[in-house]
Amino acid sequence: MTLNELLTRAAELDAADPLASFASEFVPAPDGLTYLDGNSLGRPLRASREAVLEVLDDQWARGLIGSWDQWIELSRAIGDRLAAACLGASEGTTVISDSTSVNIYKLASAALDARPGRADIVADANEFPTDLYVLDGLARSRGGRLRLVDSDPVRGFDPGDVSSLLDDEVALVSLSHVNYRSGALADMAAVTAAAHEAGALALWDLCHSVGVVPTALEDCGVDLAVGCTYKYLNGGPGSPAFLHVAPRHLGTLLQPIHGWFGQSRQFDMDPTYDPVPTIERFLVGTPPILSITPIGPAVDQVGRAGIEAIGAKSRSLTELLIAAHDLLLAPLGFTLGTPRDPDRRGGHVTVRHPEAQAISAAIRSEVSVVGDFRRPDGIRLSPAPLYVSHVEVVEALSRMAEVVSAGAHARYREQVGRVT
Amino acid sequence: MTLNELLTRAAELDAADPLASFASEFVPAPDGLTYLDGNSLGRPLRASREAVLEVLDDQWARGLIGSWDQWIELSRAIGDRLAAACLGASEGTTVISDSTSVNIYKLASAALDARPGRADIVADANEFPTDLYVLDGLARSRGGRLRLVDSDPVRGFDPGDVSSLLDDEVALVSLSHVNYRSGALADMAAVTAAAHEAGALALWDLCHSVGVVPTALEDCGVDLAVGCTYKYLNGGPGSPAFLHVAPRHLGTLLQPIHGWFGQSRQFDMDPTYDPVPTIERFLVGTPPILSITPIGPAVDQVGRAGIEAIGAKSRSLTELLIAAHDLLLAPLGFTLGTPRDPDRRGGHVTVRHPEAQAISAAIRSEVSVVGDFRRPDGIRLSPAPLYVSHVEVVEALSRMAEVVSAGAHARYREQVGRVT
Repeated sequence: MTLNELLTRAAELDAADPLASFASEFVPAPDGLTYLDGNSLGRPLRASREAVLEVLDDQWARGLIGSWDQWIELSRAIGDRLAAACLGASEGTTVISDSTSVNIYKLASAALDARPGRADIVADANEFPTDLYVLDGLARSRGGRLRLVDSDPVRGFDPGDVSSLLDDEVALVSLSHVNYRSGALADMAAVTAAAHEAGALALWDLCHSVGVVPTALEDCGVDLAVGCTYKYLNGGPGSPAFLHVAPRHLGTLLQPIHGWFGQSRQFDMDPTYDPVPTIERFLVGTPPILSITPIGPAVDQVGRAGIEAIGAKSRSLTELLIAAHDLLLAPLGFTLGTPRDPDRRGGHVTVRHPEAQAISAAIRSEVSVVGDFRRPDGIRLSPAPLYVSHVEVVEALSRMAEVVSAGAHARYREQVGRVT
Repeated sequence: MTLNELLTRAAELDAADPLASFASEFVPAPDGLTYLDGNSLGRPLRASREAVLEVLDDQWARGLIGSWDQWIELSRAIGDRLAAACLGASEGTTVISDSTSVNIYKLASAALDARPGRADIVADANEFPTDLYVLDGLARSRGGRLRLVDSDPVRGFDPGDVSSLLDDEVALVSLSHVNYRSGALADMAAVTAAAHEAGALALWDLCHSVGVVPTALEDCGVDLAVGCTYKYLNGGPGSPAFLHVAPRHLGTLLQPIHGWFGQSRQFDMDPTYDPVPTIERFLVGTPPILSITPIGPAVDQVGRAGIEAIGAKSRSLTELLIAAHDLLLAPLGFTLGTPRDPDRRGGHVTVRHPEAQAISAAIRSEVSVVGDFRRPDGIRLSPAPLYVSHVEVVEALSRMAEVVSAGAHARYREQVGRVT
C-alpha cells in the first residue's frame, strides 16, 4: 500500500464515520495542530466551558452557599451517568471522588480488610507507577507484599500469568484494563474469574480505557474499579477521578478515610462516624466543583455518541495508525510497541524508536503533531475517536516520517519538557 | 447605645477602614444581598474568574498537555504564597493538595508512625465532625482510641483541658485553631507546647482561621497543619485544601498514600516509591487545576491587604456584631454563642436562638441576609473583612431583628435546604 492509497482509505473511512460531527462540539484547538495526546489530557467541549462559566458566574458568584443544594449531588449524579455511558455498571455503584491514586488506596485498603488473614496484592510489573506505589505501601503496612506479574512489555499479561501468582495469601488483584504504555488490553472477565477462584477481589484501573474501550464491569464480575476522567473523558486537567464498587459489596466494604461526605445525615454533624450504606460511603471530603463540572457534559457526549460506536472507531483509527506505522515509520527504525491484534489493544498505539524523546519534541515543534513520550523509547499516539479523523492520523504519521527522515529531531535531543 | 449611634459608629469605622477598597475586587454579588457566610464559601474575585478563563481558553484548549509544565508547579507555588501571606511559615513547608479530610488522614497517619508505641489521639469533643471521623478511624486502626477534650461549647478549651488528657500513649493532639461553631480561638502556642512536653505531635486544623486570623505556625512550634481554601480564602466551592509540615519533620515523616506526585524524578516512572525529601512528598495524585486556580489570586489579595490588617478589621467587625446582637437580638431571645473576649475569638460570631433554623431561612428569603445555620440552635455570622463593611453588619442585624420581632420566621419552620 502506498501513502496515497492509505490517504484514500482514510478519507473513505471518514466519509462513512457516524461520529464525525462530534468534533465540532469541542473548543477549537490551535490551527494546524494534530493532537494525538488525548490519553494524557483530552480537549475541552464547548458545553464544558459553558458549564464552568455557569458555575463561576451564576452558582458561585450569585448563588453562593445556596448552590451547594445542587453541588452536593454532582459526585453521584455524574457517577451514575458515567456508569451507564461507559462502564456497563448500574446506578448507585459509581461516584466522582478524589484522585485515582487516593481511590486506589481507599478501595485496595477496603479489599484488604475484607480478606482477613491475607495481605498480598498481585499487580503488573509494567503497571503505571502510582498504582504500584500505593499498592506496595498498603501491602507492606499489613505485613504483606506486592507480587508482580512478569508481563510482556508489549503484549501485556494473559490470565494464566496472573493465576500462577495466586494463592490463599493474596487478598487483591489490581491491574490496568489497558496498559498506559503499550496499550495492551487485558482480559477482564478471565482475570477477574481467576482472582475470585483464588478467593481474592479484583480491582481494575480504567484510566486508559474509560471512554474509549467498551467495558462491562458487571458482566465481568468486577469487584472494584477506579479511573481518571481527564483523558478520553475530556474532564480537564486533573479533573477528579471515579470509583466503582459492585452492588454486592456496597454496605459491607469500608474505606479507611472516614470523611463527612460518607456520613449518614451529613449535616446533622453527629460526632460518631456512621457511613451511609450506599456508594457515597466511599466519598471523603468536599469535592472540587469547578474541576468536576466539565466531566458532566463530556460523559453525556460519550452517552450520545455511544461507547460501542466510539470503540469501533477507535479500532478503525488504531488499525490505520498501525498500517501507517508499517508503511512510513518502520523503514526509519521504528518498531510497534502495541499488540497488532485489535482484541488485545486499547485506544492508543505506542511506536518505539531509540530517539523517541527527541522525535516527540521535534514533531511537536516542527509539524504540530502532539504525542506523548514515554520512557525509555516510546511515543504514545492516541487518536481520540470523538475529535480525531482517519485522515488526520495518516497525515500526522506522514509528517512525522518527514521530520525523522530529514534528521530534524537531532537538535531536540536537549530540549525536553519535564512533563513529557 | 441606640441603633442610630451604632450605625454612626459603623460609618466612622468604614470611613477609616484601610481595607475598604478591596471589596471592589470581587465579582458583584446580587443587589441587596448581605453575605455573612464567608466562613462556608467565600465570594469570587474578578481576578480568580479571569484566571479560570485563562486556564480554560489558553492553557487547556490551546496549550493542552504542554500546559502541565506550568500546572505541575501550582500546588507548591500557591502553598508558598499561602505560607507567607497567612500562616507565618517558611517556603517549602506548605502545599495545596486533596481535601482537608484526606490531608488530616495523611498527616495524622504520619504522626502515628512517628510515635511508635503510642496510638491515642487527643481531639476536641466539639470538633468539626470530619476531623473526629478521620482521627477516630485512624486511632482504632492502630489499636488506639480518641480521647476527647470536654471543651465548653462557647468558650472552647484551655491548654489545661488538653494537658490533663496527655500521657505517654498519646501520639498526636489534633485541634481546630478556631471552632467551626462557636468561633472560639485556641491558644495555639500553649497547647502545642503541652503536646510536645508529653511527647506528642500537634496537628492544627486551620479551616476556620486561615485568611482571617493572623497565624504564626513556626513561632508556635506547630508540627503539622491543614485547612481549607474555600472560606475566607475565597478559593471557590470545594477548592483543594492545604497542608503544612514543619521544616524539622520534612524528609522524616512519611504519609501513607504513596502517589506519583510525591515521587523523586516523577516522570522517570520508576516502579519503586522513592519520595522526595521535600514538602511534595505529601502530595498524592494529579491535582484538579481548575479548582486550584482561583486560590492563587485570592491568596495574593490577602498578601496585599496584609493578614494583620485583615485580623484587625475582623476584630472590629465581630465586636460591632456583638454590640448589635446585644442591642437588637438579645431582647428577642437570642444569646451569644461566641466568646466576648476578642483574644478568644476568631472571625465569626454565632448567635443562638431556639428557632435558629427557621430564622436562618427567613432572613435569607425575606431580607437577603445570608448566615449559616448550625445545629442545634446557632446562626453563624461571618463578616469577611475583605468584602463586608461595618455598616452592612449593623444593617443586617437590624433587618434580622425586624424579621424575628414580626414573627416572619414562623412560616419557614418546614422550609430548610439540606445544606444549611
